[in-house]
Amino acid sequence: MQEFLFYHPIVIRYGDLDAQRHVNNARYFTFLEEARVQYLKNLGLWDGTDFDEIGIILLETTCTFKAPIRYEHKVRAGVKMIKLGNKSMELLHSLEDAETGDTFATGRSILVAYDYAAETSIPVPDHWRKTLLTYDGK
Amino acid sequence: MQEFLFYHPIVIRYGDLDAQRHVNNARYFTFLEEARVQYLKNLGLWDGTDFDEIGIILLETTCTFKAPIRYEHKVRAGVKMIKLGNKSMELLHSLEDAETGDTFATGRSILVAYDYAAETSIPVPDHWRKTLLTYDGK
Amino acid sequence: MQEFLFYHPIVIRYGDLDAQRHVNNARYFTFLEEARVQYLKNLGLWDGTDFDEIGIILLETTCTFKAPIRYEHKVRAGVKMIKLGNKSMELLHSLEDAETGDTFATGRSILVAYDYAAETSIPVPDHWRKTLLTYDGK
Amino acid sequence: MQEFLFYHPIVIRYGDLDAQRHVNNARYFTFLEEARVQYLKNLGLWDGTDFDEIGIILLETTCTFKAPIRYEHKVRAGVKMIKLGNKSMELLHSLEDAETGDTFATGRSILVAYDYAAETSIPVPDHWRKTLLTYDGK
Repeated sequence: MQEFLFYHPIVIRYGDLDAQRHVNNARYFTFLEEARVQYLKNLGLWDGTDFDEIGIILLETTCTFKAPIRYEHKVRAGVKMIKLGNKSMELLHSLEDAETGDTFATGRSILVAYDYAAETSIPVPDHWRKTLLTYDGK
Repeated sequence: MQEFLFYHPIVIRYGDLDAQRHVNNARYFTFLEEARVQYLKNLGLWDGTDFDEIGIILLETTCTFKAPIRYEHKVRAGVKMIKLGNKSMELLHSLEDAETGDTFATGRSILVAYDYAAETSIPVPDHWRKTLLTYDGK
Repeated sequence: MQEFLFYHPIVIRYGDLDAQRHVNNARYFTFLEEARVQYLKNLGLWDGTDFDEIGIILLETTCTFKAPIRYEHKVRAGVKMIKLGNKSMELLHSLEDAETGDTFATGRSILVAYDYAAETSIPVPDHWRKTLLTYDGK
Repeated sequence: MQEFLFYHPIVIRYGDLDAQRHVNNARYFTFLEEARVQYLKNLGLWDGTDFDEIGIILLETTCTFKAPIRYEHKVRAGVKMIKLGNKSMELLHSLEDAETGDTFATGRSILVAYDYAAETSIPVPDHWRKTLLTYDGK
């Protein structure tokens, strides 16, 4: 029951294609990244302008490829927080056909709360915790 | 009087930014390329699926950078055919702030009609010529 | 015991950096991809020219980020086949500092043998199996 | 007379290819950028670490495509300063086959001396002027 409350549209570009004539695998991670950042912006946890204030760093990410994304596809990226630890959180990702709902790929990301000025991991701040649990904690 | 009949929206991604924290210069050419391809699709000159049937090859492209594009910007790309030769055509490009109309960059592309199967340049096909002149020939 | 017989050098480009001023996470997957392709080329399993003959498709890939890669770093990518199934194989990846041996990232890829003409997965061909086991089967 | 004193090797990646199965046009600009940055590093004008100290901003860049770059090609990028103004300089670019010397592309870049802290263009500093003219002023 991986229903996502948050979806972000991804517009495929000609430049996303590789020699196999579908979207290159590394670009899927660009899409997961974009969805992740928009998820945080949507929750008011990052304002989109100060890159020293983004507050998290990526520890691990995985993508499982189910079907090729082609130039003509309309894609939506689902993001959902599925685990919240002391210093880290885990996000579930999905890349879906916005017209049919078919799944192109699923993924996961583990993010660590991070103080970029001090260059050190930190506990997930309380207002992040509250916001994430309110939105995706059920 | 560089008014464009054709505009295509460009959605900036976090992954388009470089170490200067604005959109990387090479990415502007990805945007010009996307606008060019969408211009051809919009005119029915390419269907977006068969990459051996795209019918043109890029000979030269230029971009003049007026203002940095940042993550928060909404961008639209204008394209206009401004010269049509026997075997080539020239496109004028613009990248603009979709909210204010301010210009981020201008550009030009010279495209040559190309037969990818035969790997040779060809005269611009008659239906291309007619379509381009009808749309942008004034 | 993750010693790699195969290493491929990765040259960092300014264009690999993102707004955090280190190499963007999606680019790590470009490096894993490059190392994977060079591994196959090195074993004579792909000749580097015919993209319909590449013989494998990516099912899943993961990267764990240990330390940021910066513009000044010299990087080497290790690849090792660690599991060979009937239709699939698993590769272990490493991105290391070529000067100090420090690990920037580790990763895994699951590849499925694939017939691009027939668009279907196939058993790993015998000569692939023999070549992979001879090289990395110990 | 376009002999270049400075060449920088460019290593093509599988991820540089597009649906036409040669290097994507926007990637040529990544290569010109890389060659440009390495040219400055080689002259001691930028140390490669502080992105606020890079001292120049790109005003305009052009590339003329002569022959496709394929995955198997070894590429070298030539850079030469060909004009030095009060606040700007112009660089000539070349992308060549490192094995045959054949030209894949030529290009030009106009750079403006820039103070990133003050966000304003500045006169080309004296030690830049001296260094550039000593190296490429003949």
